Amino acid sequence: MTDGQIPEIPQTLEGYFTLHEVYAVDWPRWRSLDAARRGEIASQTAAWLTSAAKVEKGDSALYSVLTQKGDLMFVHYRESPEALKAVELSFQQTSLFEFLKPAYSYFSVIEIGLYELTAMARKKLADQGIGPGSPEFEEFFETEMEKQKVRVQSRLFRDVPAGRYICFYPMNKKRGEQVNWYTLTMEQRREMMRGHGRIGHKYHETVTQIIGGSIGLDDWEWGVSLHSDDMLVFKKLIHEMRFDPASALYAEFGPFYLGIQLRAEQLPQVLAGRFEG
Amino acid sequence: MTDGQIPEIPQTLEGYFTLHEVYAVDWPRWRSLDAARRGEIASQTAAWLTSAAKVEKGDSALYSVLTQKGDLMFVHYRESPEALKAVELSFQQTSLFEFLKPAYSYFSVIEIGLYELTAMARKKLADQGIGPGSPEFEEFFETEMEKQKVRVQSRLFRDVPAGRYICFYPMNKKRGEQVNWYTLTMEQRREMMRGHGRIGHKYHETVTQIIGGSIGLDDWEWGVSLHSDDMLVFKKLIHEMRFDPASALYAEFGPFYLGIQLRAEQLPQVLAGRFEG
Amino acid sequence: MTDGQIPEIPQTLEGYFTLHEVYAVDWPRWRSLDAARRGEIASQTAAWLTSAAKVEKGDSALYSVLTQKGDLMFVHYRESPEALKAVELSFQQTSLFEFLKPAYSYFSVIEIGLYELTAMARKKLADQGIGPGSPEFEEFFETEMEKQKVRVQSRLFRDVPAGRYICFYPMNKKRGEQVNWYTLTMEQRREMMRGHGRIGHKYHETVTQIIGGSIGLDDWEWGVSLHSDDMLVFKKLIHEMRFDPASALYAEFGPFYLGIQLRAEQLPQVLAGRFEG
Amino acid sequence: MTDGQIPEIPQTLEGYFTLHEVYAVDWPRWRSLDAARRGEIASQTAAWLTSAAKVEKGDSALYSVLTQKGDLMFVHYRESPEALKAVELSFQQTSLFEFLKPAYSYFSVIEIGLYELTAMARKKLADQGIGPGSPEFEEFFETEMEKQKVRVQSRLFRDVPAGRYICFYPMNKKRGEQVNWYTLTMEQRREMMRGHGRIGHKYHETVTQIIGGSIGLDDWEWGVSLHSDDMLVFKKLIHEMRFDPASALYAEFGPFYLGIQLRAEQLPQVLAGRFEG
Amino acid sequence: MTDGQIPEIPQTLEGYFTLHEVYAVDWPRWRSLDAARRGEIASQTAAWLTSAAKVEKGDSALYSVLTQKGDLMFVHYRESPEALKAVELSFQQTSLFEFLKPAYSYFSVIEIGLYELTAMARKKLADQGIGPGSPEFEEFFETEMEKQKVRVQSRLFRDVPAGRYICFYPMNKKRGEQVNWYTLTMEQRREMMRGHGRIGHKYHETVTQIIGGSIGLDDWEWGVSLHSDDMLVFKKLIHEMRFDPASALYAEFGPFYLGIQLRAEQLPQVLAGRFEG
Repeated sequence: MTDGQIPEIPQTLEGYFTLHEVYAVDWPRWRSLDAARRGEIASQTAAWLTSAAKVEKGDSALYSVLTQKGDLMFVHYRESPEALKAVELSFQQTSLFEFLKPAYSYFSVIEIGLYELTAMARKKLADQGIGPGSPEFEEFFETEMEKQKVRVQSRLFRDVPAGRYICFYPMNKKRGEQVNWYTLTMEQRREMMRGHGRIGHKYHETVTQIIGGSIGLDDWEWGVSLHSDDMLVFKKLIHEMRFDPASALYAEFGPFYLGIQLRAEQLPQVLAGRFEG
Repeated sequence: MTDGQIPEIPQTLEGYFTLHEVYAVDWPRWRSLDAARRGEIASQTAAWLTSAAKVEKGDSALYSVLTQKGDLMFVHYRESPEALKAVELSFQQTSLFEFLKPAYSYFSVIEIGLYELTAMARKKLADQGIGPGSPEFEEFFETEMEKQKVRVQSRLFRDVPAGRYICFYPMNKKRGEQVNWYTLTMEQRREMMRGHGRIGHKYHETVTQIIGGSIGLDDWEWGVSLHSDDMLVFKKLIHEMRFDPASALYAEFGPFYLGIQLRAEQLPQVLAGRFEG
Repeated sequence: MTDGQIPEIPQTLEGYFTLHEVYAVDWPRWRSLDAARRGEIASQTAAWLTSAAKVEKGDSALYSVLTQKGDLMFVHYRESPEALKAVELSFQQTSLFEFLKPAYSYFSVIEIGLYELTAMARKKLADQGIGPGSPEFEEFFETEMEKQKVRVQSRLFRDVPAGRYICFYPMNKKRGEQVNWYTLTMEQRREMMRGHGRIGHKYHETVTQIIGGSIGLDDWEWGVSLHSDDMLVFKKLIHEMRFDPASALYAEFGPFYLGIQLRAEQLPQVLAGRFEG
Repeated sequence: MTDGQIPEIPQTLEGYFTLHEVYAVDWPRWRSLDAARRGEIASQTAAWLTSAAKVEKGDSALYSVLTQKGDLMFVHYRESPEALKAVELSFQQTSLFEFLKPAYSYFSVIEIGLYELTAMARKKLADQGIGPGSPEFEEFFETEMEKQKVRVQSRLFRDVPAGRYICFYPMNKKRGEQVNWYTLTMEQRREMMRGHGRIGHKYHETVTQIIGGSIGLDDWEWGVSLHSDDMLVFKKLIHEMRFDPASALYAEFGPFYLGIQLRAEQLPQVLAGRFEG
Repeated sequence: MTDGQIPEIPQTLEGYFTLHEVYAVDWPRWRSLDAARRGEIASQTAAWLTSAAKVEKGDSALYSVLTQKGDLMFVHYRESPEALKAVELSFQQTSLFEFLKPAYSYFSVIEIGLYELTAMARKKLADQGIGPGSPEFEEFFETEMEKQKVRVQSRLFRDVPAGRYICFYPMNKKRGEQVNWYTLTMEQRREMMRGHGRIGHKYHETVTQIIGGSIGLDDWEWGVSLHSDDMLVFKKLIHEMRFDPASALYAEFGPFYLGIQLRAEQLPQVLAGRFEG
């Protein structure tokens, strides 16, 4: 996985595969059911969610979505594409699904980028006169990656963060005619990612950020999920980052989906039309 | 909230969360009801609106939308995302909702940008030799923000303005390859916002402007609502601003939604197909 | 309405508000009615149109649209947004409306730009040593605008032109990173508008052009309607303009809608599936 | 039609108006009819097509479309917009139409651009000291255009080419900030059109190209139809042109629609679900 | 097929025509059938697929698609457009099709680009003093192409690769105002394609790449299919290529479709809502 060209490309580590699915409720059709039947279906769906969240490797969570972009957003973490497909297919068989309209979805894999590690390792080896492509270089790299994987295991394979609010959005690094992230040097990119990281760090007590890598998996390069107990923090964090060169110059954003977490037992109430937050 | 980097970023104050929702009436289905039932539903909806507008913290208003973009636009101000979700969900349970098709929605929070304050405070402190990052600097800033918050309380937490017409549109500041708002200096941005403000001020007797900040909350950076008793004033104001550098160079506009305010008691008449303005 | 900044912005005069609405006929559903009922509805709609066109202040016209973009386009001129909303709402209550699908709409106000006047007045005053912002300057401007308004009254408040064909399209002036209409000087813009006008003038015997200003009212800056008895003239005129700097460099075009005028009494025939043009 | 400015604009000659209409079959609904009824409708549609193709001035042809972009594409050539509208409206009244969903359409007029003629005439007159705008110049131009019109009559007013396959796509010449076809000199454009023509000529034995001019008539500047008995030739021709400056720098392409010609008598078989090509 | 201009254009060889078709299952309607009927239809569809895959010249395969982009993706390889149309039409007649909604499709032809060959041949001939356009040059080229066609026969006319996962996406080479693939020299393009090829080669043991050429056939220039038993390899490969100049500067990507291969006999289980991967 390493040769003369690679060190210019940041190494990444991958964890759970993730699926975000937004649905709109077809309220008129749903409300045409009698209250008892609605209650029954809502309870079944709550049970389905509880069971989905109990999966041994992974997690599932549910959010109430704001605006006409949708009503419900499911977030699933699973160990394989097959396990994600299974949970998606399983939900499509529920009675509630008959009253939902698909509104948005995103597929990615939890990713930790190793800009700093890649650069440090390269420097360390260069100091020892070991250049990329040599057997020592490759061996060192492999060993180092294994160490990292152990170190960040709990961030790659984790539950959906507990924050009350979610902010999900996909994004790219720009490849414009003059402003192109992918033609910068490793050092330039590392420098900017570091500044970017500093801002993220400032907010680390109030926001948990999950980066889903999706190059080759979905239509954007990353799907970002922010989780927090304070919705205004999403605005403050992203506003501040927008002035940071990594975002100001290079970030392209897709649509934003905002939600309020729903515990399984709250779902029947929401489906009955009451939001008691 | 302040450190060595922040002073280059304008401070903002946040008030009510806002939700704009546009719906199209499915006229053929609506008209398939008999007149009595339509009257009954229209009255219930009017009552729902009256009650929604009476919320202790916030407000709700309704507009008749021009063109095929929709028929009705609701504007809700609320103190929390939960309260907005609750009003949205509550409307979805009304009988009228069965005859509506979602057409557009936007989520933001009333925002006052403090370009001038941020810059003045910075200068004042610099004159006293107090640099960003020092405890004095931070303390001064926090105190100043609290003062401002009190001062503009009535603009952050207010009712929907009373103007007969509404003009709503989302917008971004451009991040082009050569023309990029977010790489300008604080001073350059402040200068342009000031020119921008001068034009706004010229119209302040005829137009009330509500800025909804939505970075990290919805797909554009701001959602702007203009309220006026003269619809041509929207055209004159935005036309004049288009020649102002802040807009000429940096503004990107989304779709425009134009509406005529409907008091709750006017809704039944409109739903009966008569607009007596 | 005039101050030190304004003279760089061309004055405009506004007339009737205009609404263009395109609908597709749901032919299968329409044809599922028996011929007598279809005839009855078609006659009612024809009567509705005749009555709408008879409005004291304004006019209404109907066109048969080419291609799958739609089947019918209504053009309404009215003195106020309320009057436009009233005619829109009134049409939504017709029986024919149950068999139509909304396809496109555009809202604007008939506008006459006064590039030449603004520039001449400015020059005249400068020659007399009267600068922008002074009371004399403002008074002169106001007086001049009133004179103009009287002069062009019949172009601002007029009926829909009589041409057999209509070509409607919305457009913007470009605000690119290097090519930006709104950062040109008044003199540069005036020069280009003059060249543009010369081409329009060449065709003035065969084409009537109605400019609808829509900055702040709809999604583009203008909605242009060309009316002519020769459809190829639309192509020749717009082709020629495309080489003119004002268009070549600065024009951005939206979708084009082409129609053939239908007198109210022709509507039943078209709705019966026969076009005898 | 000629004055001091025009010679910089290539003259064009116009022939039949053309309409391309793509429809998707609603197979489930269609197949819910019994076979006899389907056969009856298919035969009626085949008869409709035969009759439409027999029009004295013009032609009609049908293609089986590949991919989910649609199932059937009709191509109509007619002498007037009214005649095109009449054939469109007539098809909307057929029983088959109840089982079709509109998928795409394009309106244009067969056009022959006279770059070479315009340039040569200009040079010839300049050699004789006759400049644009003079009566001799105008007279010469008019006479020349009439001659050309007679010469290319059979290309302007012709039947739909016989090739087994069709490739239809709309296109523009780019009007970018630095790369703008419409700001080039006549000579530069002529030079590029000539290179472009050379490539077209190379394929003239296997491909028939119909250029539909649509500036001011539809959303792109041209609608191009290629007709050939070899589908790979579309790829080779357009691939080769893509390296030619006229396309490499200046062409913007819309969607591509590919079809296989169906004779009227083949339609029932295709509608019965068998393609025996 | 060769003249003075052509050597600057890479020769390509074409194999099977390919069709990718994505469908969403209408689960509520499907589940409204009783289990026995669903089983029957699922078995018939499995049989249809088995039979389609057995075609003498070509192949057919099926994938379970992740996310709301669809549920099923069929990939068909056939020797002619007619054979592709026949399989498409045949599937539209199945009972399952009544429960599917078209979601995406792409048409292309398997293509092998001969950058290296074209360049080498040109050099070889130049060394012998044989220039493009001469009879020797043309003869040599034709002979060489025939040799190549034989050599790569098994890559042009092959079955769908066996990998467990598929990643399909369409792409273009950029034609920007400053960054334009089609204005580079043959040598520059060849150099970049070589670097690109090196990365592809690195992964050749784990990924099979099928390039579908679609210039003139569909809306993008190529449709790329990657097949692998490891889904993360798609991400690694495309991530690495993104830093390679050919992609970093010149690639424009369309939507990505990810799927998990389904053998015909697995289809009934998936349609019964169980994914046992």
